[in-house]
Formats: sequence, structure tokens, C-alpha cells
Amino acid sequence: MAETINVQLSEGKKTKPTGDLDFGTIFTDHMFMMDYNVNKGWHDPKIIPYEPLSLDPAAIIFHYGQTIFEGLKAYITDDGSVQLFRPEKNFERLNRSSERMSIPKLDEGFALEALKKLINIEKDWVPTQEGTSLYIRPFIIATQPYLGVAPSTDYKFMIILSPVGSYYKEGINPIKIAVENEYVRAVAGGTGEAKTAGNYASSLIAEELMTEGGYAQVLWLDGVEKKYVEEVGSMNVFFKINGEVITPKLNGSILQGVTRDSVIQLLKHWDIPFNEKQISMAEIATAHENGELEEAFGTGTAAVISPVGQLTWNNKDFIINNGDTGQVAKRLYDTLTSIQYGKTDDPFNWIQKVTE
Amino acid sequence: MAETINVQLSEGKKTKPTGDLDFGTIFTDHMFMMDYNVNKGWHDPKIIPYEPLSLDPAAIIFHYGQTIFEGLKAYITDDGSVQLFRPEKNFERLNRSSERMSIPKLDEGFALEALKKLINIEKDWVPTQEGTSLYIRPFIIATQPYLGVAPSTDYKFMIILSPVGSYYKEGINPIKIAVENEYVRAVAGGTGEAKTAGNYASSLIAEELMTEGGYAQVLWLDGVEKKYVEEVGSMNVFFKINGEVITPKLNGSILQGVTRDSVIQLLKHWDIPFNEKQISMAEIATAHENGELEEAFGTGTAAVISPVGQLTWNNKDFIINNGDTGQVAKRLYDTLTSIQYGKTDDPFNWIQKVTE
Repeated sequence: MAETINVQLSEGKKTKPTGDLDFGTIFTDHMFMMDYNVNKGWHDPKIIPYEPLSLDPAAIIFHYGQTIFEGLKAYITDDGSVQLFRPEKNFERLNRSSERMSIPKLDEGFALEALKKLINIEKDWVPTQEGTSLYIRPFIIATQPYLGVAPSTDYKFMIILSPVGSYYKEGINPIKIAVENEYVRAVAGGTGEAKTAGNYASSLIAEELMTEGGYAQVLWLDGVEKKYVEEVGSMNVFFKINGEVITPKLNGSILQGVTRDSVIQLLKHWDIPFNEKQISMAEIATAHENGELEEAFGTGTAAVISPVGQLTWNNKDFIINNGDTGQVAKRLYDTLTSIQYGKTDDPFNWIQKVTE
Repeated sequence: MAETINVQLSEGKKTKPTGDLDFGTIFTDHMFMMDYNVNKGWHDPKIIPYEPLSLDPAAIIFHYGQTIFEGLKAYITDDGSVQLFRPEKNFERLNRSSERMSIPKLDEGFALEALKKLINIEKDWVPTQEGTSLYIRPFIIATQPYLGVAPSTDYKFMIILSPVGSYYKEGINPIKIAVENEYVRAVAGGTGEAKTAGNYASSLIAEELMTEGGYAQVLWLDGVEKKYVEEVGSMNVFFKINGEVITPKLNGSILQGVTRDSVIQLLKHWDIPFNEKQISMAEIATAHENGELEEAFGTGTAAVISPVGQLTWNNKDFIINNGDTGQVAKRLYDTLTSIQYGKTDDPFNWIQKVTE
């Protein structure tokens, strides 16, 4: 794939936001778009003004949800250059998600080049206040107008950009999480490992109930026995129990988070005892009772590290580390954000420069 | 809700198809649309020319799949009038699906009136060849441009219409079905009972593999133990074993089919032994070995009744009723289609006239 990316710049420019940024409400002046047709393959890559999509009401995306997405960020450094954090991992995962959802794969290298080209055009949109970044949303949607249940013959791959503040208004402050006992997000053999719309649609009802209860996220249990910890809302989850950091082992229904993988590499690098295994909520409860549940935190691109100050399960509240941010969570947050914003060395070669 | 439906007729008319009709590829001249906003509620109902939708690339439907749909049909009778089969059941189910997916409910009566008004405008599109009908697709999509994972503040409810032939090219002839052992469609606590995009997206990979194997549909097992029969591709499923007709009991992950319910009413009316219960594939296999598996068939709006001539499980082929259509399946098909096309009495008051 060596096709030229056509660039059509917008005539006017939007006013850039000032003050606090929300998550995912403001979009930049341009977007990337590339079409797929079963006879032509991926074709016509272009950067065009951000504008509404025009789609047939019978497009498969509206009826059968054949779609996948990614989320990553661009960060500005003190010298004004813009950089990405492990973007190749996101495009690898995009293709893995596509495989599960019967969507044709992309050339990962080409997609990353397209992203860099787009960010170069939009570099003035990368916000500079502390904790802010340019959120990047690549996604693919099925566009064939057809009501039969079958993979689409046509798709659009797009990248849109949004300047964002912290995902949680609380920032690095601990959040409250409710363990969900009724609804499930995913099950082995389902789509839990793919970053696809249906997983998130399924979770909305639980998230709505939990918001009413004053919680920031839900903790999902396995869909089979509803005993084992899977992940948290939009994050993977880690616990520190009696000195050892533990995260649920990937099992086909847990999303393979890029931040999850980075955290594991850092823990190993620091020689902090670490284990990837199946963990039941009963074990967490016992650890809490015995005073051994020292920390809990979520990991994800949007929030980086979210300490969990309170976990509620079966109407019992577990207060973790007195509701404060734990040491490991704090160290991970500081290290990851320092690497992301270019304030420290990059021992793992995680950074890719977009602009110099 | 007593709002007036604005009607804007299209200037030109499309050429109506002649010859064999495929399923879900041709759409009529007009569509119904109504918007929702969290502050205004459902508003601005209108019938407008069928045309592309214009949506922000950040619309929640493209990322988190908050959407639901229905499927029903309009039939033409020998006297040229057009009628619907139990349409109130579809709008009831639409609202149940909305509840699971955190979508605001519709006024069911108003939605049905809107559908009737649309069909009256499009009545020349109801095809007249045997076995054809006008397929009706009501659906709701989340349109707010927002990348946070939360229920949308804005939605569109739409109805589009498509003249269709039989869902299966085979018509009432028996189909081959493969039992799916790896992928799952839904699990209790998930979205299996809702008619929502993610369930269908999840199924595409299995359907693709099965099509390569020459099968028409997959039979889904329960997501927990992968032992119990749930449903078939786009249909509910029934078995006749040793004189008794059996269908899986609704369990939260099985779609509550309108045709399923109609079949149950007919079986009871005819005093045919019937049971709704959990059924394992092992029981089906044993019944087949003992020569007691007399019939199998799927039920659904698109296909009405689909006899199953062959079921493949763990590389074993079960030939059912010598691969022929069974007596019960045939009687159900004849009775349901006779009622739908107004060729016989309607003892259950299932029919609603759209035009006289």
C-alpha cells in the first residue's frame, strides 16, 4: 500500500477551546478517511475537513454494528514537539479487533503514517495545559446498505481528533467503583477482546445505574460464573495484595490494554512482585478483611492510572488505602505521564515523534 | 403524543423492481424519521424522501453501538388490501430493547400509526408475487457527537421499507445448520434478549465460517456451558421429539420472537404436545440416535418457518426427517402464511389492516 494521501484543507478554522477541556466533545478541523470495497480493497485515502458523514439509512453499521475502534493520544513536550505513545500497539489491536468482527485488515504502517500526517496538520490543536492531550480515535464502520446479516462489502476507516482534559474530573484522585453482579459485558467466545461497539453498548445500563449510585465506573465479573474479576468500565484493573501486584490473566473476554501491558513492563523493570492470574471477588474480599488489600487501580489510555479508593460489592464497601492514592499507582502514573510528555528517558522505546 | 406527522413527498419515484427479489437490498421512496433530545423528548415526526443520513463522525452509534431495531412485514391480500401481522408485538419489543440499551422509550401507538401512514404512502411498493412482502425495519440510533461512554442525549427513530422475496433462496425447503461450539452470541446479563446491533456483529464471524461450510445458519449454544440450545442465526428454534414439540425456554439471552409466540399459540390451539424447556445438544443427539428426532425448524419474521434438514454437531451430521420438510413445520408455515396473506380466518386477531 503506497497510495498517496490526498489533502484538502478546510477553508476556515474553528476557534480552539480555552479553559478546562471535557473528554471527547470538541473535534479538530480535519479528519482522515479511507474507503474499502470488496473489489477495490482499501482505497482513496484522504485528509479532509471535519464534516458530517453521509450514509444510507440501511448501512450495516446502523443495524448490525459491524465496527471497531481504537483510542490513543498525542502529547506535547516542553520543547513544543508532539509525540505518540506506543501507537503501533493500537494499530495491531485494531487489526485483531477487525479479525473478530469480520472486517478487512488495514496496512498498520500505512495507517500510522496517515495518523502522523493528520497530526502534523492539526498540531496546533494539541493542548498544552498539564494533563491534557490530543485524543485520537481511529475507527472502521460497515457502510453497505443491506439488511441481510452478513459482513459488509464496504467500509470506511476514519481518524478523528479531540483535544481532551482528564477522563475523570477527579484527575489522579481515587475513584469509587461498584462491582456489577447482574449485567455482564462479555464472555469467552463473545467479543470482549475486540474493541467493538457492542461491548460498550451492553455496558451502558450498568454504568447508568452506577452513576446514580455515585460511582465512577463498574467492575465487571466474568460472564459465566460472575465470580472472577475481568475489567473496569473503560480500563483494565490491578490489585496490590500483601506486597504483590495482581491483574486478571487475559482469557479471551478481557481487552488487551496498551497501558496494561506498559504497567506490567514497568512493574517487572522495578522488580515489584507481579502475577497475572484469575482472581475472584471472594479473594479480594478476604484480602480486604485481612488488611492485605493495599491498593487497587485501573489502567487505560483515557485515564492512564485511576486509583480505586472504594470498591462496593454486595452492598459492602471496601475502603482501600484509606481512600488515598497508593504508592505503586502514584509511581506508575508519574512514570507513564513523564514518558508520555517527554519529561524523562524512554527506556522501552515507547515514544514515536510526530513533529520535531 | 399527538404530534402531527409532516409529510414531504419525493419529487421523482424510483423504478420498482421486477423479477426475483433479494432480501433487504432495495428501499422504497420514503422513510419515517423522528428525533429525540433529552430536553425536548421525541419530536418532529416526519415522512420524507428516502435519502442518506448526515451524522457527525463522533456520533455515539459509530463508536459505542447504542442502537436497537425491529423487523416485521406488510402483506398484500387477494383483494389488494395491505395488512400487518401482530405489529403491536414488535413495538412492545422495541421498547423492551430500548430499556436494556438505555434508549428513551417511544409511544408504541404513535409509532404504529406512523408506520401505517408510511405504508399507505408506499402501498404500491408492496410486492404481489407469491412469498413476497414489504419488509419493515424500524430502528433507533444514538446521534450525540461524544466519545465518553454514556447514554446519548440525542437519537433518531426511523422506519425504512424494503420489498423482499424469501429470506432463504431455498424457500420452504429444508436448510442445513451447523452447531457453533466456539463463538457465542449472548449470555444471561448480556444483551441477547434485546434486538441490538452488537448481538448480530458478534455472530458475523461464525456465520462466515458456516457459509464456507455450506450451511445456511448456525445454531447457538448457551454462553456459559456451551451445552444448551439457544437460537438459530436470525430465528428461534423448535424440535419435535417423540411426538412432542419443544423449544428452549426464554432465559434472558434468547430473543422473544413474535413468530415463536405465534407458533406456540398455534401448537396449543391444535392440541399438539408442546413443552418450553432447557434443551441440551446431548439430548438432541440422543433423540436422533434413538430415531426420535422427528423434526426441527426455525421460526422468524424473515423466514416464517425454516425446516432444518441437517444439523451438524462436533463433525457429526444428523439428517432429520430424511432431509424433508416435516408435517408440523409444513402445517405451521401454511397456516401462518395463510393468515398473513389473508387467505384464511384470523382466529387470534393477529391481523391489522393498513389499507382497505
